[in-house]
Amino acid sequence: MCFNDVMMSDSSGDLLNRLLSALQVLPGVGPRSAQRMALHLLQHDRQGGKVLAEVLQQAIERVGHCETCRNLTTETRCSICSNPERDQALVCVVESPADVMALEQAGVFTGCYFVLLGRLSPLDGIGPDNLGLDLLGKRLADGGVRELIIATNTSVEGEATAHYLQQLAQPYQLKISRLAQGVPLGGELEYVDRSTLALSFNNRAPV
Amino acid sequence: MCFNDVMMSDSSGDLLNRLLSALQVLPGVGPRSAQRMALHLLQHDRQGGKVLAEVLQQAIERVGHCETCRNLTTETRCSICSNPERDQALVCVVESPADVMALEQAGVFTGCYFVLLGRLSPLDGIGPDNLGLDLLGKRLADGGVRELIIATNTSVEGEATAHYLQQLAQPYQLKISRLAQGVPLGGELEYVDRSTLALSFNNRAPV
Repeated sequence: MCFNDVMMSDSSGDLLNRLLSALQVLPGVGPRSAQRMALHLLQHDRQGGKVLAEVLQQAIERVGHCETCRNLTTETRCSICSNPERDQALVCVVESPADVMALEQAGVFTGCYFVLLGRLSPLDGIGPDNLGLDLLGKRLADGGVRELIIATNTSVEGEATAHYLQQLAQPYQLKISRLAQGVPLGGELEYVDRSTLALSFNNRAPV
Repeated sequence: MCFNDVMMSDSSGDLLNRLLSALQVLPGVGPRSAQRMALHLLQHDRQGGKVLAEVLQQAIERVGHCETCRNLTTETRCSICSNPERDQALVCVVESPADVMALEQAGVFTGCYFVLLGRLSPLDGIGPDNLGLDLLGKRLADGGVRELIIATNTSVEGEATAHYLQQLAQPYQLKISRLAQGVPLGGELEYVDRSTLALSFNNRAPV
């Protein structure tokens, strides 16, 4: 808290200190980066800082969750769920909006998503209710879903969540699939971790 | 620009895209960090985001420069210049508000500052007028200054600025000094650059 020592006594010190603290809510930003950011905005880019403050305020106020897939949106239904060209019968379950973006950038999926906004983690008190699985259950029960693609992370919690999703979907007559696991493209075998290498060796495909 | 592909068609896409662009005015923040920051604020810390937007807006509106030393402040004179316990006759000239903070943290200086808000750089069109040197000149001419401590950076432009400051102060009867240069404390000689080592060797002090 560098400004503290410098200008504690006047209100600019308070304001600058508050700005430094406020900037540190951003992930990966500590006291040094916060100071650099604050000084940069105040000295070199006030217009950019003004726009940032306005847009951030609007986003905080207006961005909510899609009532169908729980992705971030300012509408009641997001642009993917309300797009008639996307296949509503294909549902890909992911943990976060960042995963939706990553998959959209990959550009292979033409169905819709369901965003858990988390993963099962009993130790942190995150159960099925927190992940909107009742909403997903209803969607499956309604019958319109042909295939459920499970795309949770391959962490321990992600795997547990995947298992739970599988159990959830089993009663309904639909195809359940998961993303393929193995050696990533463009990588050197030397640098692939042992578990991935063992798994991709065991699951080797005939050519 | 990750949101672009995903949600270009609805206004949340616009808003999120605008937030991503706006975050990238921050130094060291590219598209990936901007996405991480935006999602973090929207998913996990809306209150923090709200506070950040408010404080940033206030700071942009209210923080100006001290009429005496050009440091950042919300008042007409900053807390250092208006502090009766600080020696007005000792003036330390620095390039930026960050330098003031660094020196205040070192905790050895009890005088006042003059902040250039830059350094002489003819190639970038930055001359003495841009650094408020007329203001400093007036302050020296008024006579109240006993010692001028030049604490510009040791870069080429910083050195040129220091030289100019020296010329500026010469006509007045006052002590002119510069920060000592040499090997930093706590460092290993092995890792000190050659120029610094040569300089500290030539300027070696008797024990």
